[in-house]
Amino acid sequence: MRAVDIIAKKRDGLALTAEEINFFVEGFITERIPDYQVAAWAMAVLLRGMTDEETAHLTMAMAHSGEILDLSGLAHIVVDKHSTGGVGDKTTLVVAPLVAAVGLPVAKMSGRGLGFTGGTLDKLESIPGFSVALTTEQFLATVRQHGIVVAGQSAELAPADGKLYALRDVTATVPSLPLIASSIMSKKIAAGAEAIVLDVKVGRGAFMTTLSEARKLAELMIRIGASAGRRVTTVLSGMGQPLGRAVGNALEVAEAIETLRGNGPQDFTEHCLVIGAEMLVLGGLAPDPDKGMTLLERALAEGQALAKFREWVSAQGGNARVADDLSLLPQAPVTLTVAASQAGYLAEIDARAVGLATMALGAGRERKGEPVDHAVGVVLGPKVGDRVEAGQPLLTIHAQDEQSAAACKQQVLGAYKLSSEPVAAPPLVYDVLRG
Amino acid sequence: MRAVDIIAKKRDGLALTAEEINFFVEGFITERIPDYQVAAWAMAVLLRGMTDEETAHLTMAMAHSGEILDLSGLAHIVVDKHSTGGVGDKTTLVVAPLVAAVGLPVAKMSGRGLGFTGGTLDKLESIPGFSVALTTEQFLATVRQHGIVVAGQSAELAPADGKLYALRDVTATVPSLPLIASSIMSKKIAAGAEAIVLDVKVGRGAFMTTLSEARKLAELMIRIGASAGRRVTTVLSGMGQPLGRAVGNALEVAEAIETLRGNGPQDFTEHCLVIGAEMLVLGGLAPDPDKGMTLLERALAEGQALAKFREWVSAQGGNARVADDLSLLPQAPVTLTVAASQAGYLAEIDARAVGLATMALGAGRERKGEPVDHAVGVVLGPKVGDRVEAGQPLLTIHAQDEQSAAACKQQVLGAYKLSSEPVAAPPLVYDVLRG
Repeated sequence: MRAVDIIAKKRDGLALTAEEINFFVEGFITERIPDYQVAAWAMAVLLRGMTDEETAHLTMAMAHSGEILDLSGLAHIVVDKHSTGGVGDKTTLVVAPLVAAVGLPVAKMSGRGLGFTGGTLDKLESIPGFSVALTTEQFLATVRQHGIVVAGQSAELAPADGKLYALRDVTATVPSLPLIASSIMSKKIAAGAEAIVLDVKVGRGAFMTTLSEARKLAELMIRIGASAGRRVTTVLSGMGQPLGRAVGNALEVAEAIETLRGNGPQDFTEHCLVIGAEMLVLGGLAPDPDKGMTLLERALAEGQALAKFREWVSAQGGNARVADDLSLLPQAPVTLTVAASQAGYLAEIDARAVGLATMALGAGRERKGEPVDHAVGVVLGPKVGDRVEAGQPLLTIHAQDEQSAAACKQQVLGAYKLSSEPVAAPPLVYDVLRG
Repeated sequence: MRAVDIIAKKRDGLALTAEEINFFVEGFITERIPDYQVAAWAMAVLLRGMTDEETAHLTMAMAHSGEILDLSGLAHIVVDKHSTGGVGDKTTLVVAPLVAAVGLPVAKMSGRGLGFTGGTLDKLESIPGFSVALTTEQFLATVRQHGIVVAGQSAELAPADGKLYALRDVTATVPSLPLIASSIMSKKIAAGAEAIVLDVKVGRGAFMTTLSEARKLAELMIRIGASAGRRVTTVLSGMGQPLGRAVGNALEVAEAIETLRGNGPQDFTEHCLVIGAEMLVLGGLAPDPDKGMTLLERALAEGQALAKFREWVSAQGGNARVADDLSLLPQAPVTLTVAASQAGYLAEIDARAVGLATMALGAGRERKGEPVDHAVGVVLGPKVGDRVEAGQPLLTIHAQDEQSAAACKQQVLGAYKLSSEPVAAPPLVYDVLRG
């Protein structure tokens, strides 16, 4: 078998066999197949597509390119969740303790992404003392004892995916549905998931900007899951404007704690309940999403979710008092409130533009290994559909100095559009597709 | 400007600007843009295509990536010829002295290709003493004094093309018309050509296997030539069966000499006259191809072409007596004649299969830098359309030992098809397109 023949076959629009895909992934990871051949192949895949069968083979080949975390025995069915990423998406911070409080163990081992703000690991690290650096043994012991753990990768999970993603990023081969789907699924399978709730974000602040694209990805993930013996539920949720109000690491932790206290923004709370309920269904803890929702609402209302959050923070070395005293979180020295210059109905808060403005404050990273600033970010006031009066605060910027706050103000104002006519609030969840 | 954005633009089917193409080619040659980005780009070009304008920009960017040989002053218009390559194609060995004898200077500086047999340089090196390693000064002095020179590259001509071709070869991105056309034209322009006769081979033994594909390439080359200010004439010629009878380096030199003596195979002689006549027209030495043909026929008949060949061989250090004594050429120790097992009309001699069989004897090279065996090869007897009787010799194999001769026999027999019905000889020249 020769790599160049496999590339030519894909170039000509033919389907690759499992053997060919295994040969290619194995060759890539062992560096017998050089980057330039993989890059040409990735472009051919992007432009020619892949069948579901090929995509499933690629998923399994990448999942098996490193260790597979064995979480069997932890629960009847080990459920994981994944979000395709959005601005202000702190769902895991709430959903993990929420479903764990109801009895569904959560054991997430994840990488550190790039993005407008840090990833879940960065957000958690804004809690004083919280450690995401656990050995695999500590990771497993923590979830067995507390039913919840979220940590960085100790095991080398799906290294072929990491290597391929880095190459796709610099060769303009990221936006390929089979490559996106196999990337997500291979990581989840390597991380031990037996069932997955996939939150596919749609809109300006998301990777998928249209609903039809997002639906295609969702359906593909469900089919790959079926081929790989994993049940997948996809939630298509809006990411036209940021989720909740807080965008920035510590600010998002604060919002997550408020949500666990029952005082979270309505949209974000609702979103967490939808995702959590689907997880309970997949995990066999609720017969249907409505029943799951009821269980979760009770756990919120009766304080078990917040108690589980405290237990989780303590278990990973963090200061659990943060759940009762948000001032323990890092605070930015400068805050600047931006007010509306005229009255109207909020027609748009461009999530992508807010994300870029937040990144410019230092909340995110452009390159692997860069530090993030936990304290900075923005907190939105009114959301799309709300009536705004002239002079009313639109958002508050949390920055390290006056200058960056002022620059952020200029940038973030471009994200806002007002209308003189009433505007309907955008849908939170477009659809739920169950495999 | 970022390479990844240029790749994305081509991936999305958009046309690149001259600036973007220059940035890309320059980045590639200086290694600021890594191979993997160029590989992804090449696949995007192959699958998305390029406009004529883009192809012309790419041609000029590659031509200017190294030195441009200055042949101005050598002739009114400096004419070069190029063949897309075929089995038994020794046209340059005949056409160069033929047109030079009529007064059109020929100064070819070429690379060493891969292929079934060696390239023109390898063929010339089978003449004892012949040197293709000339400095640029020697090269120019030789053509000024003798009106003819063919040598390896002393100047670094179109290095971006060489680098790109090597990458295309291992990334399944060779068969792209814009990349093929710009590769050929950039080398010719860098080698000083002001007008070019391009021999586009069509058929099983050629790169272009169908006439419509070959015609597309021919038309594209003419249009690129026009954009670059170079007149291009394309000859679409058949390569279903090998050209002439000899396939193998020294064997082809012998056949070229026979042709210059006026005793060459009819098809090959005709082919050389067609190509040569078009060169004379482009060079302004003949008003039309018919007049050019008459001039060339006279040069053949009256011995000026053979005399120019002798002068050429001497000028480059070779033993000119080879023109009168073919036994001075390298001879293979073993010859094996293959006879027809039954009677019929020769319906097919698959040029590609003959090429592969010849390569297996050692006549060609698979990798850069490999030596070639000058002595080995095959000499065909009857050609397609000829009547063959049982027991009549079909071809003679020239090999280093009995074993490789026997293996070649098995392989080469598969190239032959006999028919009980009469078969027409295939066309030699399908069409001539003039820019």
